[in-house]
Amino acid sequence: MTFEVKILGSNSASFAFSRHHTSQLVNSNQNLFLVDCGEATQIQLLRYQVRYSRINHIFISHLHGDHYLGLIGLIFTYQLQGRTDELHIYGPKGLDEIITTQLKYSDSRLNYSLQYHEISNGNQLLFENEDLKITTLTMDHRIPCFGFVFEEKLRKYKLNRDILPQHFTKEQLMDLKDGKDVIDSDGKIWLYSDLTTPPNAPRKYVYCSDTRFSNSIIENVIGANLIYHEATFLNEMQARAETTFHSTAQEAGRFASIHNAKQLLIGHFSSRYFDTQPFLVEAKLEFENTVLAVEGHTIEVLPIQPIKVKEKHVEVINR
Amino acid sequence: MTFEVKILGSNSASFAFSRHHTSQLVNSNQNLFLVDCGEATQIQLLRYQVRYSRINHIFISHLHGDHYLGLIGLIFTYQLQGRTDELHIYGPKGLDEIITTQLKYSDSRLNYSLQYHEISNGNQLLFENEDLKITTLTMDHRIPCFGFVFEEKLRKYKLNRDILPQHFTKEQLMDLKDGKDVIDSDGKIWLYSDLTTPPNAPRKYVYCSDTRFSNSIIENVIGANLIYHEATFLNEMQARAETTFHSTAQEAGRFASIHNAKQLLIGHFSSRYFDTQPFLVEAKLEFENTVLAVEGHTIEVLPIQPIKVKEKHVEVINR
Repeated sequence: MTFEVKILGSNSASFAFSRHHTSQLVNSNQNLFLVDCGEATQIQLLRYQVRYSRINHIFISHLHGDHYLGLIGLIFTYQLQGRTDELHIYGPKGLDEIITTQLKYSDSRLNYSLQYHEISNGNQLLFENEDLKITTLTMDHRIPCFGFVFEEKLRKYKLNRDILPQHFTKEQLMDLKDGKDVIDSDGKIWLYSDLTTPPNAPRKYVYCSDTRFSNSIIENVIGANLIYHEATFLNEMQARAETTFHSTAQEAGRFASIHNAKQLLIGHFSSRYFDTQPFLVEAKLEFENTVLAVEGHTIEVLPIQPIKVKEKHVEVINR
Repeated sequence: MTFEVKILGSNSASFAFSRHHTSQLVNSNQNLFLVDCGEATQIQLLRYQVRYSRINHIFISHLHGDHYLGLIGLIFTYQLQGRTDELHIYGPKGLDEIITTQLKYSDSRLNYSLQYHEISNGNQLLFENEDLKITTLTMDHRIPCFGFVFEEKLRKYKLNRDILPQHFTKEQLMDLKDGKDVIDSDGKIWLYSDLTTPPNAPRKYVYCSDTRFSNSIIENVIGANLIYHEATFLNEMQARAETTFHSTAQEAGRFASIHNAKQLLIGHFSSRYFDTQPFLVEAKLEFENTVLAVEGHTIEVLPIQPIKVKEKHVEVINR
């Protein structure tokens, strides 16, 4: 199942060196989620040929311009393109007012339903479907700022059709997919472990927007398959990172390390740096498996391993 | 004296075919004026290497997103870059609220003074310096929308230093530059027309933002050296132009023709058109001296001819 992150913008507050303001596209099983939407995100979506009419959920971490100024333009573009699908926007207090003020003065009446969901705390369930749930994290920034945890749900055991007998009922097949053994009409016990392959362990992508580094462990981040963490500065500017509520690349590495992540993605580079390679070098001092956010690149949220088959069959059901 | 218009964005409401939302830079004697500021205007300013810290006056024609959504980002960028010069913004009712709402939620206190000037009617003097005055025009659009007239002031007569005697006082030189004859201390009459060359006629650039075409003559547009007029559609879509309060290329040509302009610049092309050459062809049906708005191009506001030397010397001043 697809679970990947496309980088649309990798820079911090200013445009520089062809790097754009923060935006990412998360694809979970072909459901597209836009995470932050800096100015010109529309142009980036066109550039990378994203079918952005399919985005139905947009998450805004905080109300600094480099994270949301492309949103209102996208709302207008959807209107122009005749959108009818509901659009859900999730953001901190104030974003609703910013949007409605601009709709009012442009005398725009949207042809589609825009549903606004205010983020009010750092452990809020924002979205859930059969594949995924999305919750918030509290960041430590100058204004209210939230991260997002994209967490897959445990999927069913996969039936091994090559060896599966034909005589099972629909209910018995469901039991096998749920990891339960079954007894057929002849009284024979069939072990789900013989007839199925286990699903991959659910994957987790954690998006840490603008934030000062802290050594505190955030429970919901532990063991993430992929963490995006901002890395505005190099070590030479650590004091400035602290005072501006940002992080260094090495701190981003430390964050991934203390949360036992599998992979780290860093971005939100300051415009003072032309070359981003030193960010990689410094993050790797703490966490080897780091990649740089490069616009247009897509990073797969890699599975770790299939979940273990249970040793004991604790439940036998005869239908 | 420099008087030119640089095209930063040439398209209408959507981004398409590498064309951007409306924005222009007017350079009058090295004073830079930004006219409309669609999303990503910042990027266009960088792309065309405009020293945009030197822009002190920004004019917003109306509150449709493709004409102003880049403004708030530019305001934030100026703050980041440590701007201290006053920034003057001229726009219709509502823009002030849009800006202050966004400054509030980003918790931004600007280090420079942002002076907001509300445009309330179509014959308003917005700006004046020794070279230029800028006034408004009322457009016929779905929401309040204004055009801008950039009008040079009559300049002084230029002293012909090759033949100019050395014994004139400062006051006498001023009189010559004002087109007045002088009598020197020996009682000799010197004709300004012998000692000076006349200035060019003042030039006028008229920016007609989104508007429906009308046959009415606007007095302040007559004889403009250069008119920019929107041309969203081709003739095939004339009915749609009418209902959406836009114009066709041919109507833009007619506007230039009935106002006896010297040159016409057309832009704000609809995203339905990949090729903009047909706009040129159709505008030229009405007005031959037409050019297309092409991003990155600079169009000089050409002088017509030096003003005529007066036939009679009506005033002789002896100092």
